[in-house]
Amino acid sequence: MRIETLFTPNEIDEAAVKGKAVAIIDVLRVCTTIAYALSNGCERIIPVESVEAATNLTASLDKKVTLLGGEKEGKRIDGFNLGNSPLEYAPEVVKGKTIIMATTNGTRAIWKSQAAKEVLIASFVNMSSVVDHVSRIEDLLTIVCAGKQGRFAMEDAVCAGMLIDRLAAGNSVDLSDGANAARALYSMNQKSVAQTIRDCEHGRYLRSIGFENDLEVCSKVDSLKILPVVREGRIDRQKRSRKT
Amino acid sequence: MRIETLFTPNEIDEAAVKGKAVAIIDVLRVCTTIAYALSNGCERIIPVESVEAATNLTASLDKKVTLLGGEKEGKRIDGFNLGNSPLEYAPEVVKGKTIIMATTNGTRAIWKSQAAKEVLIASFVNMSSVVDHVSRIEDLLTIVCAGKQGRFAMEDAVCAGMLIDRLAAGNSVDLSDGANAARALYSMNQKSVAQTIRDCEHGRYLRSIGFENDLEVCSKVDSLKILPVVREGRIDRQKRSRKT
Repeated sequence: MRIETLFTPNEIDEAAVKGKAVAIIDVLRVCTTIAYALSNGCERIIPVESVEAATNLTASLDKKVTLLGGEKEGKRIDGFNLGNSPLEYAPEVVKGKTIIMATTNGTRAIWKSQAAKEVLIASFVNMSSVVDHVSRIEDLLTIVCAGKQGRFAMEDAVCAGMLIDRLAAGNSVDLSDGANAARALYSMNQKSVAQTIRDCEHGRYLRSIGFENDLEVCSKVDSLKILPVVREGRIDRQKRSRKT
Repeated sequence: MRIETLFTPNEIDEAAVKGKAVAIIDVLRVCTTIAYALSNGCERIIPVESVEAATNLTASLDKKVTLLGGEKEGKRIDGFNLGNSPLEYAPEVVKGKTIIMATTNGTRAIWKSQAAKEVLIASFVNMSSVVDHVSRIEDLLTIVCAGKQGRFAMEDAVCAGMLIDRLAAGNSVDLSDGANAARALYSMNQKSVAQTIRDCEHGRYLRSIGFENDLEVCSKVDSLKILPVVREGRIDRQKRSRKT
């Protein structure tokens, strides 16, 4: 299995994604939040790049089953139903709903990966589901870290490294420099994932604005069994593999 | 001292460079080659982004004292005097000359850093010269790794990590996630820098096209005492510090 790793969505080009599986990682917090929302019964998530796009799209949808979610600088956007905390996406809130989600970092990576064979949403909380699926059906994987404001983010790199390390345990792997770096960073942090998430720049920022509890949720490896996949611009749960 | 590290030139924006010192790292090979050329008596280097720009510029300069250097996919460009191997830039070739240099990865980083307070050219071969200068006069440093074709390159990240580690030895430092990652990658590779350069993707490629000897030259830490600086689009040697 050939595994490449990009540390920012800026690096995505056709060569990086075309004909390959893409795993998008945004640990803090949208990929974790998506996994929680779908686990808790949300029907689908429509990721959009801006508040304006979210507001425009919601006007064309049935308001009874649609929620607006997303964040700006980590905080809920004025007029939106939900922010970007996984704890907000509880069953009684999201069951049966379509959520239009505007986020700073993750959405861009999703949109730039449209030429991929398939696009998966990965984070620590659904690590095993991603590993199982990729191990079974893919030979070419590009991991795209959402990063923060176009820069390298440690929590995403360490999560990418865990994914690579687990894939390498059951497969023969050929790693790009980026993938080797991610795996090395994971190996240095594997005994302290939760602490690494607290100490990274984004973790420190989220603590400073009151989201300490989110960091704990986002660092719980394999707490959910779910594989969110992107299809035609929408994210829902993978129902069955195309190959066994 | 605040140190940020970008792993690709794509990440450069005004916030990353304005009012800061920028150290550009392209171990394989342009930053190493620039250090060799200036050490061997070359007067100045003019970096350009394309073969066309190099050819156009040379038409306006005195041919007796001008050389064209650069590479495409690692190899000398047709019609150019020099490729991108530091070993070609010997005293008898470059002394007193102006070299117009077209390269794939490094030049772009230089051009995108024009808003910086100063731009330094760093590599393993001139590490101490960079550390001494930055330690003495700078408080804000952004390290820009040239990478390879817009992607993360291990050799540049490890070199950035060595620079950070040495600066941290004599200064109180505040590191971005990228800087922490680079330092961690250096700490894992510090006893095997030459082997890391041989094993990384770019190193393997250069070996495959016959530049094995270059890898050895590029991995010799502190083999030169020189600080190339970019001023008004030209690179020459730093003559004296502005502050002692």
